[in-house]
Amino acid sequence: MASKRKVCIIGAGPCGTSALFHFDQISDSATEVVCYEKSDTWLGLWNFTWMTGTDEFGEPCHGGMYKHLWSNGPKEGLEYPYYTFTDHFGKAIPSFLPRPAMRDYLEGRLVKKSKSDIKRFIKWNTAVRYVRYNKKSDDFTVTTENLKTGQTFDTNFTHVIVAVGIFNTPDKPYFEGIETFPGRIIHSHDFRDATQFKGQRVLVVGAKYSAEDIALQCLKFGATSIVTSYRSSPMNFKWPVGIEERPLVKKIQGKVVHFLDGSSTEVDSIILSTGYKYKFPFLEDNLRLSSSRTLYPAGLYKGSLWLQEGNKKLFYMGVQDQFFSFTMFDAQGLWICRYITDTLPNKLTNCEEMKKEAQKWVQRCRGLKGINEQIDFQADFIKDLSYGTGYSPDAPKANKFFHKWDSDKKANIVSYRDQQFTSLYSGTETAPCTKPWFQNFDDSISQFIKR
Amino acid sequence: MASKRKVCIIGAGPCGTSALFHFDQISDSATEVVCYEKSDTWLGLWNFTWMTGTDEFGEPCHGGMYKHLWSNGPKEGLEYPYYTFTDHFGKAIPSFLPRPAMRDYLEGRLVKKSKSDIKRFIKWNTAVRYVRYNKKSDDFTVTTENLKTGQTFDTNFTHVIVAVGIFNTPDKPYFEGIETFPGRIIHSHDFRDATQFKGQRVLVVGAKYSAEDIALQCLKFGATSIVTSYRSSPMNFKWPVGIEERPLVKKIQGKVVHFLDGSSTEVDSIILSTGYKYKFPFLEDNLRLSSSRTLYPAGLYKGSLWLQEGNKKLFYMGVQDQFFSFTMFDAQGLWICRYITDTLPNKLTNCEEMKKEAQKWVQRCRGLKGINEQIDFQADFIKDLSYGTGYSPDAPKANKFFHKWDSDKKANIVSYRDQQFTSLYSGTETAPCTKPWFQNFDDSISQFIKR
Repeated sequence: MASKRKVCIIGAGPCGTSALFHFDQISDSATEVVCYEKSDTWLGLWNFTWMTGTDEFGEPCHGGMYKHLWSNGPKEGLEYPYYTFTDHFGKAIPSFLPRPAMRDYLEGRLVKKSKSDIKRFIKWNTAVRYVRYNKKSDDFTVTTENLKTGQTFDTNFTHVIVAVGIFNTPDKPYFEGIETFPGRIIHSHDFRDATQFKGQRVLVVGAKYSAEDIALQCLKFGATSIVTSYRSSPMNFKWPVGIEERPLVKKIQGKVVHFLDGSSTEVDSIILSTGYKYKFPFLEDNLRLSSSRTLYPAGLYKGSLWLQEGNKKLFYMGVQDQFFSFTMFDAQGLWICRYITDTLPNKLTNCEEMKKEAQKWVQRCRGLKGINEQIDFQADFIKDLSYGTGYSPDAPKANKFFHKWDSDKKANIVSYRDQQFTSLYSGTETAPCTKPWFQNFDDSISQFIKR
Repeated sequence: MASKRKVCIIGAGPCGTSALFHFDQISDSATEVVCYEKSDTWLGLWNFTWMTGTDEFGEPCHGGMYKHLWSNGPKEGLEYPYYTFTDHFGKAIPSFLPRPAMRDYLEGRLVKKSKSDIKRFIKWNTAVRYVRYNKKSDDFTVTTENLKTGQTFDTNFTHVIVAVGIFNTPDKPYFEGIETFPGRIIHSHDFRDATQFKGQRVLVVGAKYSAEDIALQCLKFGATSIVTSYRSSPMNFKWPVGIEERPLVKKIQGKVVHFLDGSSTEVDSIILSTGYKYKFPFLEDNLRLSSSRTLYPAGLYKGSLWLQEGNKKLFYMGVQDQFFSFTMFDAQGLWICRYITDTLPNKLTNCEEMKKEAQKWVQRCRGLKGINEQIDFQADFIKDLSYGTGYSPDAPKANKFFHKWDSDKKANIVSYRDQQFTSLYSGTETAPCTKPWFQNFDDSISQFIKR
C-alpha cells in the first residue's frame, strides 16, 4: 500500500524516540516517518557536553546536563513496562541512577525492543528552521538545514510531532544591580560540574528541582556555603549544614546580595536555577503552544494534540511538568501513533468535543492541592492516554513510588536517593547502594552495578 | 511618488545603522526601509549584558562584550569623517576608548547627524526567522517574530541587507579529553569580567585579537598565570611576566593540559579565544555566504552584493575581517544605499562582470603578505567603495594609523593603548591618558574625558 501519511518528528530525545519506537512497532505501511535531530546522537538531554552557549555548529546548546547528575526520581517510577531495569542490567540495582546508567537503559530499550533499526528514520545533524501549515493542502511545509553541509530543504508532511523537550530555553529573571556583580552568573542550563564551585560561596536562585539538586551538588563537591532564594515558597527541607534558604533577591550591589527579608550576604557566584520557558522558534505563531508551565497545558487534547486552528495534525510531546517522565512519554508516543494511524477505538474527531474534554483536565489541574494530588493527577493522565492503546494498565500505579519518594525527601533530602522500591513489572527490589549518594563520587556504570 | 522599493535591513548594529543612516540622508521617496533588531537597543555588540548563552527571550546572546573592554584600535582609524570624536566629545581625548565612551560616540553620530529620527525605521525585539527568495516575483519573503508577543509575520521585500555581524557564533575546537576537565571552559563570547579569573591559572586558546586582549585582561585583573596556545603561529609580543605562549593543545587530562611541544601545565580555567564562524541560520542555502574568514569573502561584488543566483538584491555588510571597522561599515552602507536607490554613476549591472571584478579582489587578497599589506588592502577596499558615492576621500588614509598601531604593539603590547595619533578630519591630537591603560580600572566616560 502506498504511503498516505507522512509524519515529521522533531527531536530524537526520550519523547521523539518513544513516538518512533511505537511507529516501528505498528509498522503501518501507509505511514512514513522522518525524525529530525539536530545533534549526532539520540536521547537528548541524557547526553553530556562540555560546551555551553552554542554547540559545534553554532546552534544553541540544547541540554543542561551536568557531570555527576543522578536521577532525582526512583527508577521504578520511570520504567518501561515491557523493558524493565532488571531486563536491561540483568540484576537488581539501586533505585537512583547516575546519568550514564540511565542513558544506557534508555538506549537499551530502543536497541533491544525495536522491531527494526529505528535509527534509519532519523536525519542526524538536522535543524528544523521553520514549520508552516498549508491550509489549502492541509499539510505542513517543514524547512530543515543539514548542519554539516549547510543545505536547506523544504519537505511536506501530513503530521508534525513537536518533541524538542521543555528544558532547553532558560528563563532568566532580572534583579536590580545584577550587571554590577563581578563574579560568575550562570543559569542552571550552563551548570556543568559542581567542582567548579569548590571553596566558593554560592547563591542558587530558585526553589524547584534544579535549585534543590544544584545546591546539594555544590555542597557535595566542596562549596563553602550555599544560599538558595525562593520567590513564592521555600523548599523547607531539612538542609544539611552549608545550605540555607532565603526569600527572593531584592538587589545586588557588587558581591553583596540583598534579600526581601532585609538580610544580605556576600557570594562568589550566582546560579540561576530559575527554570525554563517553552520555546518553539521554528513554529508559526498559530501552531505554537503558549501555556504557562503546568501538568496539563491548555490547548492540547490528551495533552498531545494541538487544538487551535482545528487542523488536528500537530502534536506536542512531553510539555507537561513531569513525575513519570519516560513512562509518560511512552504512553503518549503510543497514543499519538495510534491516533495518526487511525488505530484507536472510540477516537474523538470533533474539535469542540476535544476542546471540552481538554478543558476539564485543565480545570482539574488548576484545583490540585499539594504534591500527592499532582502525582495522582499525572497517573490519571497516563491512564487516560492508555485507554484503548494497549499500554500497560499497571503504569499509573507507580504513583505510590512518588508518594514515598516525596516523603523520603521530606525526611532527609541528603539520603532520599539511598532508599528502596520494588518494581511494578519485574517485582525486583532495589539493591542496596554500595555507598550513600552523598559520599559516592563515582558515576560510572561499572561501580553502580557492582554488587 | 509611490514606494517602488522595500528594503529589509537585518540587525541594527554598527553596520545596519550605517545603512539606515544613509537611506535617511538620501530620503528617496521611492524607497521604504525596515530594520529588524532582535534586542531592544541598537549598536549590537557595543552593548554589555550580564547574560551568557541565551537572552531574556531565550534567543542566543548575540554579543560577546565584556566589562572593562577598551577599543583595541586607535579611534583615529575608526572615525566617521563627518562626525569626529572631537565633534562628539568637544575636546581632545585619548585614542583608545573604554566601551561606554565608544558606544556614546557611535550613538552620537546616529542621533545628531541623522536628518530624521531613524529609530522609527527599526522594529525592536524582532527576530528574523527565515528569508526566502521568490524567483517568480524577484523578491524576498522575510518571516519575523515579535519576541514580546510571539506573533510571526511574513513580509515581502525587494531588497535584503544582512547586517547581523560576524562575532556572534563561536567557533569551538575540540581537544582530546576536554570533557574530563573539571574547571570552567568558556568561549571568549561568554567572557564577561576578567575579575572572575583572579587568582587562577588560565589557559587562553588562540592567537588573534581576542586571545591577545583576554590574556592581557586576565593579567590586569589578577589572574596568577596565563598560558596562551597558538595553532599556526605565536603572537610573539613581548609579553609581561605572567603571560606565555605555547603551541597548540594536544590533549587534556583532568586539570593538566598537554601541548604539541611535549610540555604540559595545570590550569584552573580554559578560555577558548578561537574566533567566530559565519552563521546565517535564517537564510536559504542559496542566499548564504559560505566563504572562510578573510578580508575579502568570495561571492560578493564590492564586498557587499551577493552574486549567486544572479538576483542582485541581497547584500552583506561587515563580513570582512576588520581594521577600519566603523569607517568601512559606513562607506559600505553608503555604497549599498546608492546601489539600491540607483544613484551610483557607472553602476555595473552585468553579473559576469561583477563576478570578474570580485574575483580580482579575492585573488589580490590571497597574495597579501604581512599585516601592513592587509591594512593597505582594506584602505583600497574603502577607496573602491567610495568611487562616485561621495564618501570622504580621506578615509583610506587612516591606514597610516594602523601601521603605527601595529608597530606600537610590537614595541610594547601593554602600553600600545597609551600612544598618540592625530585625526585625519579634525586635526585633533590625542590627549594624554590620565593613567596608563594597564593601571586604569575605571571604564567610565567621565573619568575618560576628564582632563
